[in-house]
Amino acid sequence: MTTSNDEKWIDKKISRRDMLKLTGVGVAGVAVGASGFGGVMKAMGYNIFEPVADSTTAKHKVDFYGKHQTGIITPVQTNIYFASLDVLVTSQKELQQLFQQWTPLMVRLMNGEQMVEMTTNTRVPPGDTGEAKGLDAAHLSLTIGAGPSLFDKLGMQHVKPAELKDLPHFPKDQLQQEWTGGDLCIQACADDPQVAFHAVRNLVRAASGKVAIKWSQAGFNAFPAEGGTPRNLFAFKDGTVNPAITDEQDLHKTVWVDKGWLKNGSYLIARKIQMHLETWDRTSLKDQEATFGRYRDSGAPLGKENEFDDFDIEAKDDKGDYIIPDTSHVHLARKSDARMLRRSYSYASGVLSNTGAHDAGLLFISFQKDPAQFIAVQNSLGRMDKMNEYITHRGSAVFACFPGVQKGSYVGEALFNAL
Amino acid sequence: MTTSNDEKWIDKKISRRDMLKLTGVGVAGVAVGASGFGGVMKAMGYNIFEPVADSTTAKHKVDFYGKHQTGIITPVQTNIYFASLDVLVTSQKELQQLFQQWTPLMVRLMNGEQMVEMTTNTRVPPGDTGEAKGLDAAHLSLTIGAGPSLFDKLGMQHVKPAELKDLPHFPKDQLQQEWTGGDLCIQACADDPQVAFHAVRNLVRAASGKVAIKWSQAGFNAFPAEGGTPRNLFAFKDGTVNPAITDEQDLHKTVWVDKGWLKNGSYLIARKIQMHLETWDRTSLKDQEATFGRYRDSGAPLGKENEFDDFDIEAKDDKGDYIIPDTSHVHLARKSDARMLRRSYSYASGVLSNTGAHDAGLLFISFQKDPAQFIAVQNSLGRMDKMNEYITHRGSAVFACFPGVQKGSYVGEALFNAL
Repeated sequence: MTTSNDEKWIDKKISRRDMLKLTGVGVAGVAVGASGFGGVMKAMGYNIFEPVADSTTAKHKVDFYGKHQTGIITPVQTNIYFASLDVLVTSQKELQQLFQQWTPLMVRLMNGEQMVEMTTNTRVPPGDTGEAKGLDAAHLSLTIGAGPSLFDKLGMQHVKPAELKDLPHFPKDQLQQEWTGGDLCIQACADDPQVAFHAVRNLVRAASGKVAIKWSQAGFNAFPAEGGTPRNLFAFKDGTVNPAITDEQDLHKTVWVDKGWLKNGSYLIARKIQMHLETWDRTSLKDQEATFGRYRDSGAPLGKENEFDDFDIEAKDDKGDYIIPDTSHVHLARKSDARMLRRSYSYASGVLSNTGAHDAGLLFISFQKDPAQFIAVQNSLGRMDKMNEYITHRGSAVFACFPGVQKGSYVGEALFNAL
Repeated sequence: MTTSNDEKWIDKKISRRDMLKLTGVGVAGVAVGASGFGGVMKAMGYNIFEPVADSTTAKHKVDFYGKHQTGIITPVQTNIYFASLDVLVTSQKELQQLFQQWTPLMVRLMNGEQMVEMTTNTRVPPGDTGEAKGLDAAHLSLTIGAGPSLFDKLGMQHVKPAELKDLPHFPKDQLQQEWTGGDLCIQACADDPQVAFHAVRNLVRAASGKVAIKWSQAGFNAFPAEGGTPRNLFAFKDGTVNPAITDEQDLHKTVWVDKGWLKNGSYLIARKIQMHLETWDRTSLKDQEATFGRYRDSGAPLGKENEFDDFDIEAKDDKGDYIIPDTSHVHLARKSDARMLRRSYSYASGVLSNTGAHDAGLLFISFQKDPAQFIAVQNSLGRMDKMNEYITHRGSAVFACFPGVQKGSYVGEALFNAL
């Protein structure tokens, strides 16, 4: 250690004190005003507010700018880190500033770049937590959404879409507060778990004192080497009936909001669904298939040959029984006549300490034009769904995901323009 | 549903009852005796005890058979699913049968094959839980170890190696029972999280009634596109001073046991280390680097240029201060003069519900010829280690990992021969 005593004191002061506390406090003798992390970072020699462009050279990169946010019709990645946030800001202005601050950082993250140009000053905390150094962009997508509680907290009820409200209680719900709700969400998906986690960690860090994580969940998808639909932990293919991400017409009917400030945005519904793997694994293949209404191996609807074969839930066999049982997931879901874009990830988080059973399941995520679509399906599944025997819904949240960002604009600008 | 009432009854009976309860009970009219899962599976039309060979055609395959178990000097994969198990068997014979049962299943899993040839009988639970269908072997490695408690439980104290005992309490330990100890371990590592989880799930399922998961932990490593040492969640390169996995002489000195029934095996130490990311992220780069004794960016020891440069912890600067501070992790670890093979994985398991802080850290795993090597390092780190401010050890376990398996033999045979 070759630092002088003065330098040591500065080191200590910066390293030990909460970034939150630093807000508005002189750092290394520089007054930073009330501009929060940005100001502190600037005082420390970082420059974070330059406008940032999509990289044209980065490897495995998803473009940030566009009509829609990424992470909705972006091809599904292998990993997710999903964070539901409480806001600590108390004014619309501060929220706006937060989104303005996040926007260039999101571009940088998706470019696979460090959050900030590194300063050569080692006496301050690094501007980027650094664990993604040397990794490429890994198809990182970032999706920001606003929950119903955000509008109530910040006096924005008059611009809260009528569709944006907490989901109704469904018959078999056993929701836990620790996995439910949230003022904001960050959905980070990437082909590397460390890249996804790094993005959430750094956006939350940059918003220190403005947001706090309420709950978060990591998840994964495993893609067959030959391509095709990934299997969930019940070994069934998940996402077969999704609208094609290239079918603009269908997406406009199913996914994209077409009015108000949320136009070209979408509603995200997240459900943490525990899957009782031990019970499932004691169930006959026949019963498993009758539960889904599909064959496990091929993913074809019962009575059909191939995964994507069309099917008629009313079709009956010689004996007058439904070929796709009327208690099956597929039968009941189709019966609702509602569709959505599912983009779910499995999780395996160890064992439940009380039973020793796997703490595993599905972080179900769907995007829809209107949460009513999800509600219709869930109501149709209701108490009838044979799947209920094998799963328990533990968490739930709904977010209005902003439209995409044009260069020069920022995440959520349409909302603030509507205020 | 076209099944007769009889068939429905059979479905129900098999699907609802615990596999454990089925042991010794006639299934579908076949008496299965006391051979457990194997017998039940056979009665159901599965054949699981044929000897299995390493595949010569599987993609991304690690060979099962060899002098050492896999997952020790196997190149580190991107994902781990680590399970610590309690044994429920009460005799050495049953334990031996379990290992005999597991061996061909492990080969099949590592071949990227289903656990069993699928029967066409859909009235029984599938022999493989199926979520890895369509995925390749993903470099799956499987490492089985025995904890000290196993020998006490099953009257095998006379063959328990003197080195195999619970680790001593270290000054800063805050171990929780729910992450500590275990009679057996399965370390499953693969380049796909679903392949690793599938392996543990199916081995545990095949041993239903014989083992129960005590604790388990998923983890990940992110490899730089250009190659090189992966970074942990503090953004420092982790594993730089490992012995080269090709240096047989060094491995024999450091990793492989050379006596008794554990010859060519190794001791695995697992530590669940919580990393206080928020505190770390408020620390200056200089302090972070003084904590590790290395530069974050390059991984070089302080005062050196490159990651793998040799260093002298006694070297001092002009002012007489240690160049690598004597409170740094590197300084103290090197001072112990003990080495080991580290094979750790990061974890990010959401947030701690009491504080909202990241529940993240390192599943530290090391292999050594003698746990004394780890103990020496840990004692040297002791209360001095500057890292203590940023980490808390929450879990701990030690396992004697059996030597490798020759074709025709089974995991742990040397132990049973020694009884």
